Amino acid sequence: MSKIAPLSGFPEYLPADRIIEQHFCDVIREVFELHGFSSIQTRSVEPIERLSAQGEDADKEIYVISRLAGGEHDREARLGLHFDLTVPFARYVLEHAGQLQFPFRRYQIQQVWRGERPQEGRYREFIQADIDVVDVGELPAHFEAEMPLVIADAFARLPVPDYVIGVNDRKIAEGFYRGIGLDDITGTLRIVDKLDKIGAEAVTDLLRSAGAGEEQASQCLRLAGIRGADESFVDRVRALGVTHPLLEQGLESLAAVLRAGAAAAPGKIVADLKIARGLDYYTGAVYETQFVGYESWGSFCSGGRYDSLASDGKVSYPGVGISIGVSRILGLLLGQNLVRASRSTPACVLVALVAETPEDRARSVAVATALRRRGIACEVAPTAAKFGKQIRYADRRGIPFVWFPGAGGDGAGDEGSGDTGFAGRGDEVKDIRSGEQVPADATTWQPPADDLHPTVSRVV
Amino acid sequence: MSKIAPLSGFPEYLPADRIIEQHFCDVIREVFELHGFSSIQTRSVEPIERLSAQGEDADKEIYVISRLAGGEHDREARLGLHFDLTVPFARYVLEHAGQLQFPFRRYQIQQVWRGERPQEGRYREFIQADIDVVDVGELPAHFEAEMPLVIADAFARLPVPDYVIGVNDRKIAEGFYRGIGLDDITGTLRIVDKLDKIGAEAVTDLLRSAGAGEEQASQCLRLAGIRGADESFVDRVRALGVTHPLLEQGLESLAAVLRAGAAAAPGKIVADLKIARGLDYYTGAVYETQFVGYESWGSFCSGGRYDSLASDGKVSYPGVGISIGVSRILGLLLGQNLVRASRSTPACVLVALVAETPEDRARSVAVATALRRRGIACEVAPTAAKFGKQIRYADRRGIPFVWFPGAGGDGAGDEGSGDTGFAGRGDEVKDIRSGEQVPADATTWQPPADDLHPTVSRVV
Repeated sequence: MSKIAPLSGFPEYLPADRIIEQHFCDVIREVFELHGFSSIQTRSVEPIERLSAQGEDADKEIYVISRLAGGEHDREARLGLHFDLTVPFARYVLEHAGQLQFPFRRYQIQQVWRGERPQEGRYREFIQADIDVVDVGELPAHFEAEMPLVIADAFARLPVPDYVIGVNDRKIAEGFYRGIGLDDITGTLRIVDKLDKIGAEAVTDLLRSAGAGEEQASQCLRLAGIRGADESFVDRVRALGVTHPLLEQGLESLAAVLRAGAAAAPGKIVADLKIARGLDYYTGAVYETQFVGYESWGSFCSGGRYDSLASDGKVSYPGVGISIGVSRILGLLLGQNLVRASRSTPACVLVALVAETPEDRARSVAVATALRRRGIACEVAPTAAKFGKQIRYADRRGIPFVWFPGAGGDGAGDEGSGDTGFAGRGDEVKDIRSGEQVPADATTWQPPADDLHPTVSRVV
Repeated sequence: MSKIAPLSGFPEYLPADRIIEQHFCDVIREVFELHGFSSIQTRSVEPIERLSAQGEDADKEIYVISRLAGGEHDREARLGLHFDLTVPFARYVLEHAGQLQFPFRRYQIQQVWRGERPQEGRYREFIQADIDVVDVGELPAHFEAEMPLVIADAFARLPVPDYVIGVNDRKIAEGFYRGIGLDDITGTLRIVDKLDKIGAEAVTDLLRSAGAGEEQASQCLRLAGIRGADESFVDRVRALGVTHPLLEQGLESLAAVLRAGAAAAPGKIVADLKIARGLDYYTGAVYETQFVGYESWGSFCSGGRYDSLASDGKVSYPGVGISIGVSRILGLLLGQNLVRASRSTPACVLVALVAETPEDRARSVAVATALRRRGIACEVAPTAAKFGKQIRYADRRGIPFVWFPGAGGDGAGDEGSGDTGFAGRGDEVKDIRSGEQVPADATTWQPPADDLHPTVSRVV
């Protein structure tokens, strides 16, 4: 048997941290649904050739699956685990187009796998939370403005650091490059994308090596240097003196995204003309999100518009989407102790056990049943240990209340306790934080709202 | 590029069916949490030798993963996708024992993978929902009675057919077999396990071939034939005239499970002494669940007690657990059209768009924002099509309400509409099922409770 050991790149949480992960997924789901996105889950695997079609970088990251026993029915197509949720979604749209309503708004919160060398905040198995809108033939531009606003709504409800969603438009770069006489758009974008990592001088050298003249390289860097939270970026681009119809389209699109952003999420949406995004398939808006003070961690939420990712040769399904790196965010927040859960279990109450007899256990179970009927999570003590030990059992898990059946004597419960059996006959409940113990009836007692479920909050 | 095609054994749902899947997972999670189980997620992969340690049958089912690009850091341990949630949980307990509180109550709702040949209701990728309780050294017997009651609580809240949870105790079979002089317990159990499939005569033949005498084989079949919802099964076993200390322990344990079941879930928990369960590691109670009228589909919820699955050589962590086959249940219910969702999107309201101008879009977005603030899911119409077309857009998705900003003229909203901007100025909302259209204010309007979220119900 193999030694028990963690696997690098495959994070696993203890129960309190898992509560934080659930909280993030729950809030994100709630916001996505409020904005009218339908949930789908795609299968974890796709044919290898569909995964590798996304460019050479993707290949290195793909996990292939094969049956240990092998045998005859492995002659089918080779399968790999998906490395994002966009490629499977594009395939899903093509496969089910006849049964979907367009424009189709979908969200997907699911695990993905990449065989990369793991490093801080980068995993081999991790959760992403994506929204996309796809349409048939044409996709209205206002969806490009909508994506970052849904994210802003989610982040406003989550204990995350302050953030900025940077937006660019591929048409700006392409129009600008063509306007100055550079035709290798993808190659130029890839070099400019390294700006944050290697600096302006090295980018200039790379552009020159790729055939750009000195003035062309300078213009690329001037464009990449433009950044701002309002529409003034348009004038600053125009001041560079380059004209091209695609550039004009891009400036108009991006200005519209900025206007919508300024109205709905002031200060959060910023035009940042150096954003390139690695993937080839983007054709319009592209998004990247940084947490203020944690810029070196890179982007926690990215995406963009794609016009030809999903196409069956006759019909194309242009789309726009954005993806929250849930595990990456948790990697930061948990690694730096920036967030915590109020307890490690959903249980709000431990129902104590007076003695290990069938009658006493039945009595405690009846209390638990009455509490659960009203949505109060609880468990019954595992053994009839001394009450001090039962209280410590609750304390170690962060369970705030211990319930003592019959602790108040035979009480006043002989009449009217209804169908709850023993419950309600002279019980008492103790808040183990304050030590306060009061008479309580399992059919009516209510914990404070903040104690009903575990809560998740920023550590300040 | 590979042809777009479904992959056999990897189910994928359209949005309306996904809402049903989410409903099942949500209800199961809610019940598990009400019973004080903490959520964990284990990584999807385990070292191959840990997966294969569970017996030869498991080997055939394991999917191995490897990096497409291969290379130097593949020298690490070979990994496979987990085929259940019990083996990873046992490893998790050993790995994190120092940081867990025992007895540890955990639930886990997660995908598992098996490379089996797919067939009706059997998948290669599917969701299981497990609860387990593990303790250190010893595990109190009352947890064996608790497991099926948690399931009964979940099934009571789900649109599933009537069901019976059959329970047996491994100690009964082992004690009985030893009492009649049969020492190959596992071998005998495996043969008796085939009773439903191959019948009594063939089981007798197999037992005889395995070395049992005629009377021994008959006794095995008599024991396997005992079934009942109350404790009378104990007397029927005793009437077979076999005595063994382990048999007595088993009878007492199972009688306690039946008593607890009769009190909390009358008629749902049945002693069924032919239940064997394939896996070797069970040592006490074993569970199987059948839907009444769908017995040929096999068990939808199974599990049992295991005393030595998780052990580091010094300390052992005995446990008991039960697992709901979520995808298997959905395979039945969706395949037979036994359940349906009220709509295919979370959106309760479509906010119509009067004209494609920035002002009109802003006005519709303001209505949507006001509704979302109060938890009402909605989307804004994608284009300013004719209202008839916008209504059909809602109708095709099952969205019950269409909101018309300003439809009631400039209304009475000039004063006091507060920070919602345009919202509230003479808007109207139409229930597109009844056609009724009434004035409405986005800051106060409330849909009927049944329309707020999609609902899932049995088809009758």
